[in-house]
Amino acid sequence: MGIHRFFTSLNDLERIIRAPGMFKFEEHNVAAHSWKVSQYAMFFATIEERAGQEVDWKSLYEKTINHDFAEVFIGDIKTPVKYASPELKEMIAKVEEGMMEKFILREIPSEFQAVFFERMKEGKDSTIEGRLLEMADKLDQFYEAFAELKRGNTDKEFIVMYRIALTKLLNLPLDASVNYFRNTMLKDVINEETAIDVKEITRQIIADH
Amino acid sequence: MGIHRFFTSLNDLERIIRAPGMFKFEEHNVAAHSWKVSQYAMFFATIEERAGQEVDWKSLYEKTINHDFAEVFIGDIKTPVKYASPELKEMIAKVEEGMMEKFILREIPSEFQAVFFERMKEGKDSTIEGRLLEMADKLDQFYEAFAELKRGNTDKEFIVMYRIALTKLLNLPLDASVNYFRNTMLKDVINEETAIDVKEITRQIIADH
Amino acid sequence: MGIHRFFTSLNDLERIIRAPGMFKFEEHNVAAHSWKVSQYAMFFATIEERAGQEVDWKSLYEKTINHDFAEVFIGDIKTPVKYASPELKEMIAKVEEGMMEKFILREIPSEFQAVFFERMKEGKDSTIEGRLLEMADKLDQFYEAFAELKRGNTDKEFIVMYRIALTKLLNLPLDASVNYFRNTMLKDVINEETAIDVKEITRQIIADH
Amino acid sequence: MGIHRFFTSLNDLERIIRAPGMFKFEEHNVAAHSWKVSQYAMFFATIEERAGQEVDWKSLYEKTINHDFAEVFIGDIKTPVKYASPELKEMIAKVEEGMMEKFILREIPSEFQAVFFERMKEGKDSTIEGRLLEMADKLDQFYEAFAELKRGNTDKEFIVMYRIALTKLLNLPLDASVNYFRNTMLKDVINEETAIDVKEITRQIIADH
Amino acid sequence: MGIHRFFTSLNDLERIIRAPGMFKFEEHNVAAHSWKVSQYAMFFATIEERAGQEVDWKSLYEKTINHDFAEVFIGDIKTPVKYASPELKEMIAKVEEGMMEKFILREIPSEFQAVFFERMKEGKDSTIEGRLLEMADKLDQFYEAFAELKRGNTDKEFIVMYRIALTKLLNLPLDASVNYFRNTMLKDVINEETAIDVKEITRQIIADH
Amino acid sequence: MGIHRFFTSLNDLERIIRAPGMFKFEEHNVAAHSWKVSQYAMFFATIEERAGQEVDWKSLYEKTINHDFAEVFIGDIKTPVKYASPELKEMIAKVEEGMMEKFILREIPSEFQAVFFERMKEGKDSTIEGRLLEMADKLDQFYEAFAELKRGNTDKEFIVMYRIALTKLLNLPLDASVNYFRNTMLKDVINEETAIDVKEITRQIIADH
Repeated sequence: MGIHRFFTSLNDLERIIRAPGMFKFEEHNVAAHSWKVSQYAMFFATIEERAGQEVDWKSLYEKTINHDFAEVFIGDIKTPVKYASPELKEMIAKVEEGMMEKFILREIPSEFQAVFFERMKEGKDSTIEGRLLEMADKLDQFYEAFAELKRGNTDKEFIVMYRIALTKLLNLPLDASVNYFRNTMLKDVINEETAIDVKEITRQIIADH
Repeated sequence: MGIHRFFTSLNDLERIIRAPGMFKFEEHNVAAHSWKVSQYAMFFATIEERAGQEVDWKSLYEKTINHDFAEVFIGDIKTPVKYASPELKEMIAKVEEGMMEKFILREIPSEFQAVFFERMKEGKDSTIEGRLLEMADKLDQFYEAFAELKRGNTDKEFIVMYRIALTKLLNLPLDASVNYFRNTMLKDVINEETAIDVKEITRQIIADH
Repeated sequence: MGIHRFFTSLNDLERIIRAPGMFKFEEHNVAAHSWKVSQYAMFFATIEERAGQEVDWKSLYEKTINHDFAEVFIGDIKTPVKYASPELKEMIAKVEEGMMEKFILREIPSEFQAVFFERMKEGKDSTIEGRLLEMADKLDQFYEAFAELKRGNTDKEFIVMYRIALTKLLNLPLDASVNYFRNTMLKDVINEETAIDVKEITRQIIADH
Repeated sequence: MGIHRFFTSLNDLERIIRAPGMFKFEEHNVAAHSWKVSQYAMFFATIEERAGQEVDWKSLYEKTINHDFAEVFIGDIKTPVKYASPELKEMIAKVEEGMMEKFILREIPSEFQAVFFERMKEGKDSTIEGRLLEMADKLDQFYEAFAELKRGNTDKEFIVMYRIALTKLLNLPLDASVNYFRNTMLKDVINEETAIDVKEITRQIIADH
Repeated sequence: MGIHRFFTSLNDLERIIRAPGMFKFEEHNVAAHSWKVSQYAMFFATIEERAGQEVDWKSLYEKTINHDFAEVFIGDIKTPVKYASPELKEMIAKVEEGMMEKFILREIPSEFQAVFFERMKEGKDSTIEGRLLEMADKLDQFYEAFAELKRGNTDKEFIVMYRIALTKLLNLPLDASVNYFRNTMLKDVINEETAIDVKEITRQIIADH
Repeated sequence: MGIHRFFTSLNDLERIIRAPGMFKFEEHNVAAHSWKVSQYAMFFATIEERAGQEVDWKSLYEKTINHDFAEVFIGDIKTPVKYASPELKEMIAKVEEGMMEKFILREIPSEFQAVFFERMKEGKDSTIEGRLLEMADKLDQFYEAFAELKRGNTDKEFIVMYRIALTKLLNLPLDASVNYFRNTMLKDVINEETAIDVKEITRQIIADH
């Protein structure tokens, strides 16, 4: 027991592959994903601040870097749960929560347990920081799917993943950020040369929106 | 839908790593593990037959090659559930079962669904074939842990894994096979040169037995 | 000497890459290949049984899981022997056979040597199980080539491999299985979205047939 | 040009290996390292706050996640510059700085350039956040070297790296954090079972301190 | 100190990846690159000899196998320096040179230092062997870029790399070799089936030439 | 057909792993091995020249970079042929030779076929260059085995490989080089810190010599 155990467990997340089992041209691990999410969130928080919103940077920092720590227990299984019902999804969430609780009680020194319970709880709440986490997390999924389409991965799962991520991004209640993403970033994205016609897929999704 | 989808999903198991997250000198995937289990089981079935038991080879074949197919849905998470309670373990089993059911109903042609439900159900029952599956599966865990100890992996998880696997092997109700493992194979195992003193660890486990 | 040596040598096959040297988007090892072959064979044996054939499941089990064990000695070299004459191919087969014999005599305990000589001999004979092994082995080659074409591998070797595997599959003397493959599975295969026009290549092969 | 280019360049850091060329049992990439640094820094900032210090969390967030972005240009070369003079080190820093400047001017939209110049500048200044970054960065180097010694890497470079990192950690002007590291964490670290006698090496370093 | 240290450092170059950070379907290390360069150079030297030139084979041998040894210090950073000015490039060259000098003085036995200073100096001079090195080195860059375009890598960096390498090859003052490359080899190259239209890109480059 | 085909086949050797199947802490490919052999050979040729021998550098260059090209056909199988008789070894050599011949006749332009037959023939003859190739090739095997012992690989195959390589090196008819290796290099080698007691193993081999 001790914070040393927590620190060494961070290393394990460098060995947890996202979307395991699926064929991918580029593999990503949970540690690197968490870092990219913290980068995207910082950028959109800057946009929100400029649009007059108040950002709690400490909260955003905590939410982004911790949001996938629980994957150390059961890996990254939420994305490809194509055969899962809402009931099964809820069960998985409970399993993860139960393991997280046991981990904190066993490994984290008692004087830090309250802090860890706070930091490790589900971060995607209705605060602006919770929404920025949601946006950053979806953006990374969007980028992972985009990269596969760009490199010519014809497995349908990635078109589905691209569509879901893009649709969720466009629907997020974060006006300034979503506008920036839609009106500025998305243009650069679809102007890239890609093996699969991402431009057309994107247009359809926006039209359906 | 179609058997083609089942066949291509087999490939995904070549990309599912066993004991994900943990540092290992040798990585193993679920497809190769399933093959090794089918090899061990065939050997011990031969021993049981010579000892007068009757073996249903078709059943053994089905049990061994299919026993971990469900990991295609949520990966290999049972081994490192060190923080899991029996309650959590049961939940995970239910999630897996639920996904397996949905998969068969959606992907397998209707004329083969009954066969697949039979072949994909939990194989570790009290038949001699169920016990041979249990023995072969534990033996592979034993070998994976042994290889890490042999190569000098000092992470305690592997000593724990070695102890659990060995103890379970010695307790299995398969007299001829367990005798052969204990009196013949185990001698060769502990006579290998190893970085960590596996011989001593093994002696203690046998003494405690 | 001892069965422990045989069991640890199985692990080496997880490190033997199929079609070494060639550029591939997906790498496969001999252990995982053997498992997939045992899966395909089980499925087609079910089809043959339903069509009235009698299947010796023990023999099928033995043939499929052991058919490539000899690659532990000289690796997977039969596939890319584009520069080999039939004479050279025969020499390679003899080398492999010679090594297999020496291995059994040196490593396998004497009371199991007869069993191993039986199980390790060439399995592709004219029995129905021998034909099922041939079909399953060719099907995995077909799938490996198909996956490369699907992902956009323009190296000609894979079109050649696809053509050879498909032609051999269509010619196998296993009526029910070949019919199922041709009339049911192949439709699903060529309806997949692919980077290279596999549908057209397949039509030509069938037309030439 | 556009933030899309910055976001996709983050991905490149997942492909930049730390301490390239050296033999390592565990490889780490710059993206995952940045995340671990942001985790360590958050923990020690919590300790500093409890000890009465005021922490600017936004600044700490910015410093930790951006501190190695410039490695996208020339890779991770600072650690193994065993043959470098201070003069050469300074040159490398200038090269990196020059590339960073060109990158911001070419790729970042003008309205964000000031923010990026601020965030991407050298973060290890004399503020408490600068010191926390320094501590977190050294701690990751300490952990990387420790893991190699633990797994039996006898290459001297890692003993040197361990000694340098530990000595620097003990000398940092961050009293509460260094005390916690020295009196609490370090005990757990040296009580781990290791292939190389890290306990003894550590005692000598502390004695020399 | 001693030649043993030099020999073991060769191994490090097997771990230095060319064009680090960039997404590539095929990764190459500096050791294998050096070997391919020595192969190309030998072929073109044969062509030059047949065209009446005199080749100093010892010099060619020395130049080709040693030309990238200095990358052991700071990795392969010259290729992707899109953000570097000529000034920055010169600085990098100086850093490398400085490290090379320190390495020879510290590690190479004194009786061989003069030989190593001679062999490790920049080899791309105006001698015929210097030009053959230049040609072989560019040809490997050409082939690396070609392979990415062939496999469908749409990242613009590889079109740029292909264009630069091809243009430089066509401009080299090595008449017989460049003629052979242009009139014989290039035809075979552009007749390969490729995912990206390399034939068209090549025609434009030749037309612009 | 064309030299382009030969050049692209060089790339395949970057994908051929030496000693396939065996567990190794460090993997090596045939391309990088060939480069290291050409480096060792150059060094020892320098020693021989200083000792008054005449070296044909062109021949040495040709021999070293081409000596393992034939492995492109059947991979690296000579080392672990522990179960092979001399008869089987000879057969393998014939297979390789036969494939090499077919390759040259089919792929190499006719005006270069004579050159390629000369360059690709077995290089380990009784000339000084043939002996330098033999020495360099054995030295790389010595170093590969040494690195495994150093890192704690307890598989007996590597002690055997170390013993064979060292014994052959000490017996080579290349006085100046062998003296340098034995009296100067070997001291540095056995003074390295190693996980397995290489010093003792080495002393025994020298004593037995």
